[in-house]
Amino acid sequence: MTSSDPESAAFHANPAHSLGYLCRIAFRSFSRALEKLTAPHGVSAAQWRFLRVLWQEDGLTQRELSRRVVMREPTTVIALKGMEKAELIRREQSTQDRRRTHVFLTPRGKALQATLTPFVIEVNRRATQGMSPAEVALLRELLTRVSANLTSEEPGES
Amino acid sequence: MTSSDPESAAFHANPAHSLGYLCRIAFRSFSRALEKLTAPHGVSAAQWRFLRVLWQEDGLTQRELSRRVVMREPTTVIALKGMEKAELIRREQSTQDRRRTHVFLTPRGKALQATLTPFVIEVNRRATQGMSPAEVALLRELLTRVSANLTSEEPGES
Repeated sequence: MTSSDPESAAFHANPAHSLGYLCRIAFRSFSRALEKLTAPHGVSAAQWRFLRVLWQEDGLTQRELSRRVVMREPTTVIALKGMEKAELIRREQSTQDRRRTHVFLTPRGKALQATLTPFVIEVNRRATQGMSPAEVALLRELLTRVSANLTSEEPGES
Repeated sequence: MTSSDPESAAFHANPAHSLGYLCRIAFRSFSRALEKLTAPHGVSAAQWRFLRVLWQEDGLTQRELSRRVVMREPTTVIALKGMEKAELIRREQSTQDRRRTHVFLTPRGKALQATLTPFVIEVNRRATQGMSPAEVALLRELLTRVSANLTSEEPGES
């Protein structure tokens, strides 16, 4: 076994060889590049993740938002409280079921869609610079397969 | 412009089309799958990231560890304090330069390498199930290019 053998312990000892590490670094690079553009508009990368879902469907419950953003519910609630304070959203208890809280965009939260969407397009363009459309499509497909492979063996989670 | 045109706003409005989102979900899947295996040994995914670097080079400074793990320094210090409490590492102020703190593995931290490394190999094997070695190599290469593209335009950061 040599360190270039992907089945070897020596290979995996090198963080740069770990796919998990490479996904994390790529995600962080996206997040930081986007935040540099959204921060001057008072929006963090985490807040942008919620805005993007609400632009698609306003009025979701906290639970549904948590599922769609793929963030644990307690973390979601903390993030949403911050967004309420920043006047990006308002939260409203359901009149039918008091355990449910719906989340609505404020006019400011709505208006940010037109401002922030070009930034996302720009960051994606930069990220894939020098890649062919086929390479970008393959990258998307392989990342989707990785996530599906890892979550399909977690019967406890959806 | 249609929603399948990667240059369109409608395309980017769908979170599933965003490469940043796909990287984040893949990273989270890795992190969760690994943590399920390491948690019974008292090690979180974040702690494992530091252990992996220290297994390669024990005694690094906090600053250098922060750089290698790709985590901001204040977050690194919080994580290291937790690891000290868990008796995975000990921190030692440099005798030459009191502003520098070196981080050393405890015998328990060292011994965990043999226990945890097979888990990493197992999670990587699961993640890439059904992919050819060429596809896995291409995925690594494309992720590396994405990160390089996004960070090369950040002259303020290394």
